[in-house]
Amino acid sequence: MSVLVVGTVAFDSIETPFASAERIMGGSAAYFAVTASSFAPVQVVGVIGEDFPAEYLELLSKRGIDLEGLKVEKGPSFYWRGRYHEDLNVRDTLELQLNVLSGFVPRLPDSYRDASYVFLGNIDPAMQMEVLDQLTHPRLVACDTMDYWIQESLGELKKVLKRVEILVINDSEAKLLSGDHNVVRAARSILKMGPKSLLIKRGEYGVLQFSDSSLFATPAYPLEEVFDPTGAGDSFAGGFMGYLARAGDHGDRSLRRAIVYGSVAASFTVEDFGLRRTATLTLGDIEERYQRFLQLTDFHS
Amino acid sequence: MSVLVVGTVAFDSIETPFASAERIMGGSAAYFAVTASSFAPVQVVGVIGEDFPAEYLELLSKRGIDLEGLKVEKGPSFYWRGRYHEDLNVRDTLELQLNVLSGFVPRLPDSYRDASYVFLGNIDPAMQMEVLDQLTHPRLVACDTMDYWIQESLGELKKVLKRVEILVINDSEAKLLSGDHNVVRAARSILKMGPKSLLIKRGEYGVLQFSDSSLFATPAYPLEEVFDPTGAGDSFAGGFMGYLARAGDHGDRSLRRAIVYGSVAASFTVEDFGLRRTATLTLGDIEERYQRFLQLTDFHS
Repeated sequence: MSVLVVGTVAFDSIETPFASAERIMGGSAAYFAVTASSFAPVQVVGVIGEDFPAEYLELLSKRGIDLEGLKVEKGPSFYWRGRYHEDLNVRDTLELQLNVLSGFVPRLPDSYRDASYVFLGNIDPAMQMEVLDQLTHPRLVACDTMDYWIQESLGELKKVLKRVEILVINDSEAKLLSGDHNVVRAARSILKMGPKSLLIKRGEYGVLQFSDSSLFATPAYPLEEVFDPTGAGDSFAGGFMGYLARAGDHGDRSLRRAIVYGSVAASFTVEDFGLRRTATLTLGDIEERYQRFLQLTDFHS
Repeated sequence: MSVLVVGTVAFDSIETPFASAERIMGGSAAYFAVTASSFAPVQVVGVIGEDFPAEYLELLSKRGIDLEGLKVEKGPSFYWRGRYHEDLNVRDTLELQLNVLSGFVPRLPDSYRDASYVFLGNIDPAMQMEVLDQLTHPRLVACDTMDYWIQESLGELKKVLKRVEILVINDSEAKLLSGDHNVVRAARSILKMGPKSLLIKRGEYGVLQFSDSSLFATPAYPLEEVFDPTGAGDSFAGGFMGYLARAGDHGDRSLRRAIVYGSVAASFTVEDFGLRRTATLTLGDIEERYQRFLQLTDFHS
């Protein structure tokens, strides 16, 4: 089965302690789609400006990603510039230009409306809601958000949360959304807002998954070289949803495996700049590292 | 088999956002010993002042802990006062008095010299070395240290590292000791200093274990209520070494299980103030939570 994602497709300019890159392809939907495409066909809903290079779009198309829902508008594309500290867990946003994204109203092509697996990437909750309203019979809807929307659009975000099955956020967002420092209590109070399942991303420390009936904890794949953490969370979500769509199932056992597949997929993304590594990633690469991950976490046998 | 520990037995005064306590029993050897005593007999090497209450010593004795190696000196006991922030991962040391610990030279009772499982708790590396020199045929020696010794006694510490099999430190200490921000590279360079195995404690995020041939990662047991993180690292080490001494084996499979048993044991310690919960802990309590931990980390089956 295929996965539909709504989110940003953008220019990123990135500085890390090791290197920098200007106006490479970024955005939540781009990272999600390229990673998910290792597992399943992907449909993208979003907007780019006329300045967006054909070669970037070709990279997406070559991965079999359906771009019918990616609108081209007059004006410049969404742009983000950020700088990472020596400690790569810390970054500053230096510049952010919404450009064509401001005022964007997502319209789903007819062929997207019956999508089964849907990911509402990090974007204005009002846009997430627009997409939700156009779906005819989604099987599984997951969503992401960020501190900005929690602070500026909490009302709209809470409406979205009532209609999604899975929320995927990081630990600082979980603390902000719940107002609680303790991650377990934070999760309990977020589950009351609507989602049946909550995934809390902790970067290099792994992922926690909470539902009313189960709790799952996994470390991240330890990496010797992290070049660029940009997009790790979206790659994680892409691997997670891609695995579920491929499996055609989201029972507890599949969810746990999907979380590990997502972590493993994201571990490749951060090993090179931007989408460079992810763009050539195969399911075989991911399977191989998944097997290593099984070994490195095993104390059960 | 029994476990020998050298470290501090002390007074702690602790403030957390929830409560505070004055002059309760603390110190690396105390937390280690009380936790390890759920698994195996424990022998303690250390020093206290004449002001140390009989009821604290009785608590240790009642757990079957051998105090023959705990010297009583004239003067006040080692004293630490600390305050935790709202975010319990951050704490300030407000007061530190070495008192009887300053100039202490550990002397092992004859009955301790043939100890098999030995833990050199967080204490001056010169004192750790004194203990090492008095052991006749240790089977497994592990040690801990802290930022202060890495900065002030690096030469002595490095001599100790050449003679121990396992080093147990936290992630900021690993970064300090190696000079590397990346935990995997930090581990590789610390292994070159001598220890065959390195355990990196990451607090609420779990533990990583590195050796030349293997890598193991585990999350921590997620807790809804953390009252007092004091002693969590020493409790972890106590559970870890206690399990190994009980198993009488430290192959890779036993090491992995010991790490999880240590994590589970430490999860009880932080649920109440000081040693309150740990003092009544049974192997049955630990086994029960170990089984839950197996479930909450399982994606292998």
